[in-house]
Amino acid sequence: MLTRSPSETLTDQLANRYAQRIRDRLLPPGARLPSVRECAQRHEVSPYTVVAAYDQLLAQGLIEARRNRGFYVRESRGDPRAEVAAGERQARPPAGPRVQPPVDAATLIRGMFRQVDAHGEQMKGAPGMGVLPADWLESPILGAAVRRVTHAANLRALSLQYGEPAGDPALRRALSHKLRSMDIEAAPGQIVTTVGATHALDVICRTLLKAGDAVMVDEPGWAVEFARLTQMGMRILPVPRREDGPDLDVIANYCEAHEPQHRPKLFISVSVLHNPTGLCLTPSNAHRVLRLAQQHDFLVVEDDTYSHLATPHATRMCALDALQRTIYVSGFAKILAPNWRVGYLAAPPALVERFIDTKLLTTLTTPALFEQALAHCLEQGQIRRHAERVRARLDGARSRSVQLALKAGCRFVNEPAGLFGWLDTGVDTDRLAQVMLDEGYLLAPGSLFHAVRQPSTLMRINFANTQDSQFWTDFNRIRGRL
Amino acid sequence: MLTRSPSETLTDQLANRYAQRIRDRLLPPGARLPSVRECAQRHEVSPYTVVAAYDQLLAQGLIEARRNRGFYVRESRGDPRAEVAAGERQARPPAGPRVQPPVDAATLIRGMFRQVDAHGEQMKGAPGMGVLPADWLESPILGAAVRRVTHAANLRALSLQYGEPAGDPALRRALSHKLRSMDIEAAPGQIVTTVGATHALDVICRTLLKAGDAVMVDEPGWAVEFARLTQMGMRILPVPRREDGPDLDVIANYCEAHEPQHRPKLFISVSVLHNPTGLCLTPSNAHRVLRLAQQHDFLVVEDDTYSHLATPHATRMCALDALQRTIYVSGFAKILAPNWRVGYLAAPPALVERFIDTKLLTTLTTPALFEQALAHCLEQGQIRRHAERVRARLDGARSRSVQLALKAGCRFVNEPAGLFGWLDTGVDTDRLAQVMLDEGYLLAPGSLFHAVRQPSTLMRINFANTQDSQFWTDFNRIRGRL
Repeated sequence: MLTRSPSETLTDQLANRYAQRIRDRLLPPGARLPSVRECAQRHEVSPYTVVAAYDQLLAQGLIEARRNRGFYVRESRGDPRAEVAAGERQARPPAGPRVQPPVDAATLIRGMFRQVDAHGEQMKGAPGMGVLPADWLESPILGAAVRRVTHAANLRALSLQYGEPAGDPALRRALSHKLRSMDIEAAPGQIVTTVGATHALDVICRTLLKAGDAVMVDEPGWAVEFARLTQMGMRILPVPRREDGPDLDVIANYCEAHEPQHRPKLFISVSVLHNPTGLCLTPSNAHRVLRLAQQHDFLVVEDDTYSHLATPHATRMCALDALQRTIYVSGFAKILAPNWRVGYLAAPPALVERFIDTKLLTTLTTPALFEQALAHCLEQGQIRRHAERVRARLDGARSRSVQLALKAGCRFVNEPAGLFGWLDTGVDTDRLAQVMLDEGYLLAPGSLFHAVRQPSTLMRINFANTQDSQFWTDFNRIRGRL
Repeated sequence: MLTRSPSETLTDQLANRYAQRIRDRLLPPGARLPSVRECAQRHEVSPYTVVAAYDQLLAQGLIEARRNRGFYVRESRGDPRAEVAAGERQARPPAGPRVQPPVDAATLIRGMFRQVDAHGEQMKGAPGMGVLPADWLESPILGAAVRRVTHAANLRALSLQYGEPAGDPALRRALSHKLRSMDIEAAPGQIVTTVGATHALDVICRTLLKAGDAVMVDEPGWAVEFARLTQMGMRILPVPRREDGPDLDVIANYCEAHEPQHRPKLFISVSVLHNPTGLCLTPSNAHRVLRLAQQHDFLVVEDDTYSHLATPHATRMCALDALQRTIYVSGFAKILAPNWRVGYLAAPPALVERFIDTKLLTTLTTPALFEQALAHCLEQGQIRRHAERVRARLDGARSRSVQLALKAGCRFVNEPAGLFGWLDTGVDTDRLAQVMLDEGYLLAPGSLFHAVRQPSTLMRINFANTQDSQFWTDFNRIRGRL
């Protein structure tokens, strides 16, 4: 809500709010702003206030007016040197090749952060979000673990030196035990800690691939993965995700490409509670993917981000393969403390040192404070017990959300499981997401989960955020208008 | 020292120590191990123990015996898939292009971490190290700042959400003030926090460059920078560093290359207390580099890693240019808490969002705990006062080290300043470094500071670590033997 304040006029507040939305790409380039009348109604201000706020945005170059059509977010994002040159008011045209366009996933990932801190616009809800709400993650174990590792002598020891390149030894030992409980044999020396699972995936790709290499990924799949590979100049080969796992015929086809340089070097896949479908790999499919990997000489990166939300006995390729040509990736952001940014990889011995080299080139080391705190939580079994509680709560949320979604006339593409539902709404979800955003809801339209963005009637919902019937009432009303 | 222990035999201890050295590349591929007799003397064990330990290393495939010449570290580091295949005992030859060779800087950067935690081999000293000793960085402000930000409610708030993509707002405000005191105008919105300055440089390069692009760097310069650019597939254009700054004629030459794709996109340079020479940029040179940047349309990345060790009024290109086509990079690892891994960049407004996008793709966000703690230290002026004390201590260390180095018959290439001395020893420093390593000293040979490794009689010394006359006595004795 806008409130009268002595420090900032209503006009400034409104202009700043929209400027922030544009910068966060919650209003992406080309998006239409609400009409003056709509905007005035929604924010309970006069139309004059809206006109003055839009004038500020025009003056800042963030939006443009199109005759008789309203206000739109400006599209310009070109060569950085050209932009800089424009800032210097030079007349010369941009030189050299243009850099990559803005990442496709930006809207969603910016939203992931914005909604939670309510900076600028207060959202009503974020059914599209990829994380559990903060109050679900809350646990006294965080504070106790931090106090334990920050007593004076230990804080000095862990702060004043760079720390081990591979990561804190206590955490790597604890992770080795944890992996063994999932039938994955990884010595502490095979484990490298990273700044979240995102960094682990980045380190792996940078070490094993070079621009132009072909990489197989799940489709649908996680937009940040597509964006990273695109930015690195990789050729993305989408592998459709079936009920039992990746489509084996498609993998075999890619591997039999005529040109050796077109054959995939890597397959990056989420085996357990796949994002966005929630599907899990069957043992038979896992075995056959690994046979193809051996036959066609590619490596498999198993992204186990949702590990803590699954039963311990889910099938993982790394367990079958014993980390011979598989690399395991996971972290703690989905269960405990997203901002601690602790992730890790477990790799074949022959690759570990090379991954450490890349880690050194990207961040040198990683902060030991959180790694030691997590080691303590793991050793004490605290994370396992916390995860059990979260899973039980998620089971309840899922059954409520599923009921509401079905009542709203949606259809699940497959059996709901884990954190996400993959839902057919019957309407174009890109349009739906834009209109719902004006209503204060952040959705995850199906187009985001494709390597090449394409229209879709599907969307991903987070079961923890869709238990509320108010969302579904608003959803139904707006879908009816499209 | 090896000690008799019920849990690990002397043989195992010795084998493990050398295995660790080889993995850390303190003994790089191709290096010769000490003879059995030398090794037995040095570690005060029997020759039988050494033979048994070397046998273990042979069995592990870490070393090889060359007839009548002794034991050498094995060279093999090829295609990761080939290595994996070898692990599977397959006969097929490695397929596809080979990945990059191990980074040149690995020995030194592994050493940077190993020496300090004394894992495996206890070093006598590390004159080649790039950081201040831990006890120099020690200060009560660390503990106070951490306690301040980890009280229960704040720890929850900063842990359970991903945090702001650009970094903690309080730190970005504090950094904006700090930069203003150095005549660099950067609004908090132009600042992006990173996992140390290393990550800032990585984010910038990944955003602005693609494989094959030409990048100018200082020569001599920092080996990790060369290694990163090489791994990314960039064309490195070395710019000789003169007394007054980068060689302007060389820059102009690169910019006038016939083929537009060979012209440099970026110049990465350390203006203040350049590594390894300790030189500072003159205002006139700074002005002319910026004119060339404008004329030839390249951007400048000013790496200000040693900022805290310099006087506040050193010349910085970002101050002259007002962040128009310059990007500022710095961090806190050289003055306060290396393992907190807090760095940042300040950029032209047109580039900020793009850097945030890349940050999201590499690590999502950064841990807010350390950022908030540093914000507090900056706001209270604690880091400024701490830096003044460290500078005074460094001044004393420098004058002692310089005296000892001159007495040992070395010559400084230029006037000593800051943390590093750039020293001519009169002998090949690659050989010197290997022999000194056996004596327990980690040196930084001159070859490490060249984009294309070449023999050199120069080496870099850390003034904080070379005040001890014992080092110079050992140095003189060993140099005499070469």
